[in-house]
Amino acid sequence: MVPLLVRGPAWLFQWRAACTLGAFVQQRTWAGVSRIPGLGGPLVQRGSSSASSQAPEVVLTRERYPVRRLPFAQVSEDDLAALERIVPGRVITDPEELEAPNVDWLRTVRGSSKVLLRPRTSQEVAHILRYCHERNLAVSPQGGNTGMVGGSVPVFDEIILSTTLMNQVMSFHDVSGVLVCQAGCILEELGRYVEERGFLMPLDLGAKGSCHIGGNVATNAGGLRFLRYGSLRGTVLGLEVVLADGTILNCLTSLRKDNTGYDLKQLFIGSEGTLGVITAVSILCPPKPSAVNVAFLGCPGFAEVLQTFSTCRQKLGEILSAFEFMDAECMKLVELHLRLASPVRAPEPLGVLQLLARAVLTLGRPCCLRSPCLLPLPESPFYVLIETSGSGAGHDAEKLSDFLEQVLGSGLVTDGTLATDQRRIKMLWSLRERITEALSRDGYVYKYDLSLPVERLYDLVSDLRARLGPRAKHVVGYGHLGDGNLHLNVTAEAFDVSLLGALEPYVYEWTARQRGSVSAEHGLGFKKRDVLCYSKPPEALQLMQQLKALLDPKGILNPYKTLPARA
Amino acid sequence: MVPLLVRGPAWLFQWRAACTLGAFVQQRTWAGVSRIPGLGGPLVQRGSSSASSQAPEVVLTRERYPVRRLPFAQVSEDDLAALERIVPGRVITDPEELEAPNVDWLRTVRGSSKVLLRPRTSQEVAHILRYCHERNLAVSPQGGNTGMVGGSVPVFDEIILSTTLMNQVMSFHDVSGVLVCQAGCILEELGRYVEERGFLMPLDLGAKGSCHIGGNVATNAGGLRFLRYGSLRGTVLGLEVVLADGTILNCLTSLRKDNTGYDLKQLFIGSEGTLGVITAVSILCPPKPSAVNVAFLGCPGFAEVLQTFSTCRQKLGEILSAFEFMDAECMKLVELHLRLASPVRAPEPLGVLQLLARAVLTLGRPCCLRSPCLLPLPESPFYVLIETSGSGAGHDAEKLSDFLEQVLGSGLVTDGTLATDQRRIKMLWSLRERITEALSRDGYVYKYDLSLPVERLYDLVSDLRARLGPRAKHVVGYGHLGDGNLHLNVTAEAFDVSLLGALEPYVYEWTARQRGSVSAEHGLGFKKRDVLCYSKPPEALQLMQQLKALLDPKGILNPYKTLPARA
Repeated sequence: MVPLLVRGPAWLFQWRAACTLGAFVQQRTWAGVSRIPGLGGPLVQRGSSSASSQAPEVVLTRERYPVRRLPFAQVSEDDLAALERIVPGRVITDPEELEAPNVDWLRTVRGSSKVLLRPRTSQEVAHILRYCHERNLAVSPQGGNTGMVGGSVPVFDEIILSTTLMNQVMSFHDVSGVLVCQAGCILEELGRYVEERGFLMPLDLGAKGSCHIGGNVATNAGGLRFLRYGSLRGTVLGLEVVLADGTILNCLTSLRKDNTGYDLKQLFIGSEGTLGVITAVSILCPPKPSAVNVAFLGCPGFAEVLQTFSTCRQKLGEILSAFEFMDAECMKLVELHLRLASPVRAPEPLGVLQLLARAVLTLGRPCCLRSPCLLPLPESPFYVLIETSGSGAGHDAEKLSDFLEQVLGSGLVTDGTLATDQRRIKMLWSLRERITEALSRDGYVYKYDLSLPVERLYDLVSDLRARLGPRAKHVVGYGHLGDGNLHLNVTAEAFDVSLLGALEPYVYEWTARQRGSVSAEHGLGFKKRDVLCYSKPPEALQLMQQLKALLDPKGILNPYKTLPARA
Repeated sequence: MVPLLVRGPAWLFQWRAACTLGAFVQQRTWAGVSRIPGLGGPLVQRGSSSASSQAPEVVLTRERYPVRRLPFAQVSEDDLAALERIVPGRVITDPEELEAPNVDWLRTVRGSSKVLLRPRTSQEVAHILRYCHERNLAVSPQGGNTGMVGGSVPVFDEIILSTTLMNQVMSFHDVSGVLVCQAGCILEELGRYVEERGFLMPLDLGAKGSCHIGGNVATNAGGLRFLRYGSLRGTVLGLEVVLADGTILNCLTSLRKDNTGYDLKQLFIGSEGTLGVITAVSILCPPKPSAVNVAFLGCPGFAEVLQTFSTCRQKLGEILSAFEFMDAECMKLVELHLRLASPVRAPEPLGVLQLLARAVLTLGRPCCLRSPCLLPLPESPFYVLIETSGSGAGHDAEKLSDFLEQVLGSGLVTDGTLATDQRRIKMLWSLRERITEALSRDGYVYKYDLSLPVERLYDLVSDLRARLGPRAKHVVGYGHLGDGNLHLNVTAEAFDVSLLGALEPYVYEWTARQRGSVSAEHGLGFKKRDVLCYSKPPEALQLMQQLKALLDPKGILNPYKTLPARA
């Protein structure tokens, strides 16, 4: 991991970090993630096999939660024959094949669907929905099944409508950067496609290796580039949606501006498949930045994280493209379960420049500067990942150097590493992106995805740690600090009603007092639908229910999701 | 107007421009807008007195257009008394006071409302609407009355609900930049308010001196900063809206991310007051850039405008904040009606540096380099206004210099001027922002606001010029090139049905063939509501009508607007 510093030699950064700690500083090593087993390979594909087949069976949703099946029809042999005529050879009824799509990738909810359909076209989706609408059959649309709130798996025996085979790019305009594609395209593949053409997908998230763009839009996914490129509500230019009765609503425009009537696509963005099935997406891709840098820094406290963010906005301005944070507990779990290592702890064989830097640093300091350093080194209480994306490598490096000088000089940051090449940037990002995966390997995960005033963002984590004590295995906080978005996660050996009782409604009430959101970016799905009232007034809920009734009068689309069960 | 060039002396830019034209170049002068009468003063306030009281009376909408009054109740004396109890002293019935709010500022449509209400609070708006809903009285919400499509004035005798007195800032968070304010705040005043606190309004438009933020949101205004800060659909974080029946829908959150249920505010953004009355807005303001530059450049053809745009995106990257274009006809009208002058034509007394530059330039060139130059100089067929906004003045200047070097060297740009101080930047912007005003002084204006593929953007203008011949006074094209948004305007001495027949549906069919939008940012209002079908399929129109029926079953909110008259 080579430090990028324009105004000074490579060791300046490390040196200043050391300075801020006073007279004696135990010297930390530079990142060494390249030799961590498995990191170079593809990320674990969510939705397929995140947990091994040896994992204990997930309790059926209908048994774990107090939910009653609505009076939909049940799939008959005649139905199967009719569906087979619509999508010949793509009606899946094999129980083994149906196992994975019935379970969410976090392994917290499990449906009992007996049919999965794999349409290839919007017309097929329209035929399916028209049929199901007439027959009063419930349908659960499913993309990559990477959702966090049980929104993408059936609750009972809903027919699973998978977008897996709807994976074609329909057009790409290499002047405007507008991509039009089917809903089942995998985000990472789209990323590669547009990057080869000089553009970037405006969203990025840990699940990119398996999530579908249609699912992203249906969830209104936020992710890692939100800070820079904003919400999907701005970057999605058009949608094609199949309504509950099979009507195809073609709003697949590629225009940046279009004020002809109500913006219908907004209804479907973030509605989790409950108002219509997104079948195609038109999305504006920004030009690929020519220079990207990632700094992974250690901060001594959360106050310093916040001040680092302020300094960052001031010094990096328009080139700042991500500001993520994670606490030391997250880092522990990533190290433990994924065998990744903190880049500001784990050593790697040093290069000449780094050795030189260390040689300079050791002058007069009783420090562990062997190469490679084998001593266990202290960790930082917090880490931040800062990404810059710009059009001028030199300018960006200068801005970054200015920023680092300030945060190191003032003690806001005590340690860190920088990456400029793609492989190492990816490694640093992995530490942040794979926290979810590490958590899922730690046991049952109680997940909270909250929007909070940034100055109170971490208080809830500390508060809960004290409140839960040894009942929780781990209480961790990380997330998109730049967007005021905390991912609060609590792990335990197994699902435990009493632990849940200690967490809820406590977390929601705490959030509501701060006028925050109880779902910043994950949506409500099945697991959070009953907490909507903590962030929305009754008038809003009523209007949502009216919209659902208007667009899906029989309620066949993704039932038991998003909106609370009616009293 | 002092040129900003880091890598060379002040004259380099002008010199290179001259070079690209070959051996003999008639030298143009630098901008001289500072001494143009009236420019330093406030812009004409739209909606109040854009036309003088001597202007001919505007024909009543109900007489000019084939529109029939819907069966709403008529305002009775009892109604007036009841409304007086809700907003005491703020029920306006004086015919003289009602003249201006009955006419749109373009003076193309005119209603005959006999009552205008000026509520101060959302509760008052709620009481008014509850009353009107019960009594079946139609209501026309009005902000600054700066709309382009007759959306903000009554068609018949609808009660005008003005947001003029709802002009309070409710809160501003100086870390996040989130502004919460009432709907009647004037955009320019909000701009000043947040700029004093180190932030910027994410939208800006020519009408800023009188338009209201609530009206901007109801129109989904695009404007001059769209290219950089994106759509209001992304920057508006929350809304408070009063529904047709008087229900207050409080979705006035200040959170960057909130995925709790359907995003109801999106229904109201761009719905032109037909689904609810926006009473308060929460909006995310970006940090104020520390360095702003504006270049006003002349291009020899539209192909060169497009290439200048591509070069611009490549060279200026993340600091590009606007790319506007206007044709020579626009410049003529601005000069003629507003007495502004092209900064690349009109001379001003030259400074030492400029004289020096010119002295260098005259070497060997038979050019009109007197000071001030009094010769009529040739104009450019096209002008572009490029704005950069960044956090590092030095870096931005270097990028701009790089860009200019390339476009001047390759002949894409033949002339130009640069501004870095606020006063001169404002002057250059005035040329672009006040085109609408100049057009309105030229006669009756047929306005088209189209989204088109950028490469075809100007074809329609040339095409129409040939088609209309002398029947049109002027056919001009300008707009937000960076967003693919053309403002096509045709002026004539007076409204003329046969000219309208030559324009419509021709313009709409042309646009539809390019899969463009017949309203990029102005909305549909009254004047464009029947052309919705050129950009949206019947299924979309049907859903829009269903939404209208759901939210406003009696149809009292801004009737005759946005949606086509039912068959």
